[in-house]
Amino acid sequence: MRFSAGYFMEAAVEEALRAESEGSVPVGAVAVADNKIIAAAGNEVIRTSDPTAHAEILVIRRACAFFGSPVVEQCDIYVTLEPCPMCLEAIFLSRVRRLYFGARDTKRTRLEKSDDPGNRSFAGTEIIGGIMETRCGDILRNFFAKRRE
Amino acid sequence: MRFSAGYFMEAAVEEALRAESEGSVPVGAVAVADNKIIAAAGNEVIRTSDPTAHAEILVIRRACAFFGSPVVEQCDIYVTLEPCPMCLEAIFLSRVRRLYFGARDTKRTRLEKSDDPGNRSFAGTEIIGGIMETRCGDILRNFFAKRRE
Repeated sequence: MRFSAGYFMEAAVEEALRAESEGSVPVGAVAVADNKIIAAAGNEVIRTSDPTAHAEILVIRRACAFFGSPVVEQCDIYVTLEPCPMCLEAIFLSRVRRLYFGARDTKRTRLEKSDDPGNRSFAGTEIIGGIMETRCGDILRNFFAKRRE
Repeated sequence: MRFSAGYFMEAAVEEALRAESEGSVPVGAVAVADNKIIAAAGNEVIRTSDPTAHAEILVIRRACAFFGSPVVEQCDIYVTLEPCPMCLEAIFLSRVRRLYFGARDTKRTRLEKSDDPGNRSFAGTEIIGGIMETRCGDILRNFFAKRRE
């Protein structure tokens, strides 16, 4: 059977919740090739003191290691939050086929308002936003609400 | 004695040449804190099959590991080429104090023409371009000229 985008986003949500349980910001991602999850990651910035350890960067690095190539055109990435510019460029550099993201980054929503062509220099990647948007966003909102308590 | 920007850029050039000798694109970077080089890296994309293994990403990760923190406001980064959007955002995320770069990216020159505020969301970083520009650029031009032969 073919799995739906919601199925894979649910797996990304599980990675986000795992990241939270380890003290990190709850963002998760999975990489999918040929209808299978071949890599998964949650944010590890705080735990590993690495500012580049966003879920997307980690899942791309793991997917590339899986295929032994810096280019993974056969992969789709599912991530619970709209990628930041660092992760977006990494997605383009690795030539991911499709990017599915959940919650929108309401501070930037770069992907929907940007007309900066420099930001789409490797624009083979198709982008589909708002998958399970409320569920993905609630996890982050709850996390930051708890931190403010 | 205080070392000059040229001294540290020369160290970044050595990293670029080492990367080239290992079959990678010749871009190099060093991180400097308190007048000392505390981390160095060359591009490792091809050698490690990691599309995120740009010199800047690696040197930031190493500098953060050195200090045990995802934020290194005490660090300056020297890199032989104007950073791509991925590396630029990583520099902002890590709150590097100053970014010195060598050659300009003539395809984009984002840093000098961009007025996109999203790109400077962590704009504590001061940016100084064109340090040893010809030397840094020649290394890249020679590398790509040889690849076309």
